[in-house]
Amino acid sequence: MHLTDTGPMVAEVSCQRQGAVVHVLLRHGQRMNAMTRSMWRQLREVFVQLQLDAGVRVVLVRGDGQHFCAGGDIAEYADFRFHEDSLRQFHEEDVWGGLSAMLECDVPIVAQIEGNCMGAGVEIASCCDLRLAASTARFGAPIAKLGFPMAPREAALVARVAGEMTAREMLLAAQVLDTPTMAQRGFLHRVLSAEQLGTEVEHLCARMSELAPQAARMNKRTLRALGQHGPAALAQLLLAAYAYADSREHREGVSAFMEKRAPVFPDHRHDT
Amino acid sequence: MHLTDTGPMVAEVSCQRQGAVVHVLLRHGQRMNAMTRSMWRQLREVFVQLQLDAGVRVVLVRGDGQHFCAGGDIAEYADFRFHEDSLRQFHEEDVWGGLSAMLECDVPIVAQIEGNCMGAGVEIASCCDLRLAASTARFGAPIAKLGFPMAPREAALVARVAGEMTAREMLLAAQVLDTPTMAQRGFLHRVLSAEQLGTEVEHLCARMSELAPQAARMNKRTLRALGQHGPAALAQLLLAAYAYADSREHREGVSAFMEKRAPVFPDHRHDT
Amino acid sequence: MHLTDTGPMVAEVSCQRQGAVVHVLLRHGQRMNAMTRSMWRQLREVFVQLQLDAGVRVVLVRGDGQHFCAGGDIAEYADFRFHEDSLRQFHEEDVWGGLSAMLECDVPIVAQIEGNCMGAGVEIASCCDLRLAASTARFGAPIAKLGFPMAPREAALVARVAGEMTAREMLLAAQVLDTPTMAQRGFLHRVLSAEQLGTEVEHLCARMSELAPQAARMNKRTLRALGQHGPAALAQLLLAAYAYADSREHREGVSAFMEKRAPVFPDHRHDT
Repeated sequence: MHLTDTGPMVAEVSCQRQGAVVHVLLRHGQRMNAMTRSMWRQLREVFVQLQLDAGVRVVLVRGDGQHFCAGGDIAEYADFRFHEDSLRQFHEEDVWGGLSAMLECDVPIVAQIEGNCMGAGVEIASCCDLRLAASTARFGAPIAKLGFPMAPREAALVARVAGEMTAREMLLAAQVLDTPTMAQRGFLHRVLSAEQLGTEVEHLCARMSELAPQAARMNKRTLRALGQHGPAALAQLLLAAYAYADSREHREGVSAFMEKRAPVFPDHRHDT
Repeated sequence: MHLTDTGPMVAEVSCQRQGAVVHVLLRHGQRMNAMTRSMWRQLREVFVQLQLDAGVRVVLVRGDGQHFCAGGDIAEYADFRFHEDSLRQFHEEDVWGGLSAMLECDVPIVAQIEGNCMGAGVEIASCCDLRLAASTARFGAPIAKLGFPMAPREAALVARVAGEMTAREMLLAAQVLDTPTMAQRGFLHRVLSAEQLGTEVEHLCARMSELAPQAARMNKRTLRALGQHGPAALAQLLLAAYAYADSREHREGVSAFMEKRAPVFPDHRHDT
Repeated sequence: MHLTDTGPMVAEVSCQRQGAVVHVLLRHGQRMNAMTRSMWRQLREVFVQLQLDAGVRVVLVRGDGQHFCAGGDIAEYADFRFHEDSLRQFHEEDVWGGLSAMLECDVPIVAQIEGNCMGAGVEIASCCDLRLAASTARFGAPIAKLGFPMAPREAALVARVAGEMTAREMLLAAQVLDTPTMAQRGFLHRVLSAEQLGTEVEHLCARMSELAPQAARMNKRTLRALGQHGPAALAQLLLAAYAYADSREHREGVSAFMEKRAPVFPDHRHDT
């Protein structure tokens, strides 16, 4: 993980760790952080690395500047979209490579959303656990104007998280939706003024980083398996569901409560 | 497709094509468009025909006069409801015949909802992709007052689209819900004044008819398969998901964007 | 079913039948009705008994005093939580024993929610069909502060009823949510002032107890099977879906409507 230069027209996904919180930044200057193929691959790499770092407790995803992400980088489209093989490779390897690494991340992910959150932006936000937005943010996937459908895995993701109805409105009517609507549809956890958003997200991440990290990972794995397999996931989940009983984290949490003090949870260890 | 006479007590589902938009009208005078068995069969026929017409880009479903649809036509119930075989035939062939033809329609469907939208009305609206309502509309399925449950396929449809919680409230408490509630529950895309509704729906249909028709059909098929089979549908969907790469529609959409002009999409062709 | 003494620090789940309505009371004085292991077993027993009583038409679940239920009784945790076997027994037998008996109950269940509705409280409320809350109620499952995850079956229940997004917010951020938020998320059917809540719930239960009891049971079985098995449940459901055709209840409901009088539905009989 590293900080990167801020040159003109940088197109990258970078990350920076600040204590237990990792900041993932989507950055593509002058294009409202539209995702290039290279950025999708970097997104994957960032989340694969995060997953290996036991000291990370919260991930914050945001866009550089005034926007979250305006979609895919259309300037690249002529290079690969008009051939079935390269189009498949783009969606199944580049895009889904990045999104699936986010979905497989066991650490809680917070999205901080300002400005345009379109297409790829909605997909990336859908892979986050909590979504906080500035009241001025706008959401959509108006690709019906560009003459193509949403790829199946991506449509399944957006329909699951934003709701099938919202997916239909975005895809079939190319509708752009505002924050009150996206909060009502259950996509946004909180809507704040643009001025307050950064501070509130910072407080939320600080608060989340003091919660039990092993419990968070178990909860994420449970909800992921249920989302993928439905109730059929339960038999497998129950095999190891209570192995945490004697862990330090569990004992610390209950003890602290009984002793009326704040718990201090150890970092997650892969062997517990 | 044809326009029909407006005699007294006409009970029919008619349709009229205006350019790329087909208007489907539920009409049963003096009964708030309650569905007769014959109307269910006509509903099926209308949507089977629509599906074959490559020039149709949007379907608008509405009720004649001041109501969408008040439910089933109770005047017919004594003829068939009290015998298991004829009751099964009614639900599985007449009602599900109509609803399943709507669900299998690949063209986007908009519901324009005014007044009463009850029972069969909620089911028909649930088969539409976008639902716009007048603020005075009312929704429910108070059949618990009539002594019978919702048939399983219909309950699955309403629970999926209106939400399981709303289905429980309608069925177990015979609750009639207003438009703010149905918008909050995620059933309604937009709520408008009765004066504005017709004009807004007209604008929406005009706008939708300029979007890419092949992409719309692919999106509808994807969302339908996911709704029916969940993530298990993905393997099948991915086989042909990128065959559109070299299509005229796809090239036109991306080219128009690059050239900063409005795209002009050709009609959908079944061979592309 | 019986009324019980109100001693100091009583911890019990009691029930009392008033006509066709059974009142289930969660009571644990000075602990905001936190559930003990014994209370979970009583909850099971109460609902197993209810299910056998053909005269019951509505169940009302509420907490004693100013709260619904503050969660599990942490005072008991040191006795069983730190050993995998006893922890598994607690979740799979005690907790799931109670919750599954509620889910298997064919009679409509109304939750009246005031004050704190946390952890076990959210789970119990999620097993109800309709949820009405006082505007001052608060919802959450902040067990990440206690160092443990939500057990898989319970997480599946809460994610299904409150929504996956709300489950993530409660579990990963230990967020406590207010009534406007829980109404927007689709968890609460109605929010009322604390003064009005009791009266409105009483009216609702009275109204529901006049609806068709056999239809309610069929609707609950249909929605339960669909929730557990998805569309795969339909084949089984359709086998007996129309056997009610010739029942007294069905004939009474339709006849009463035709005769413009209020229906009088007979009690549900297990042989019809």
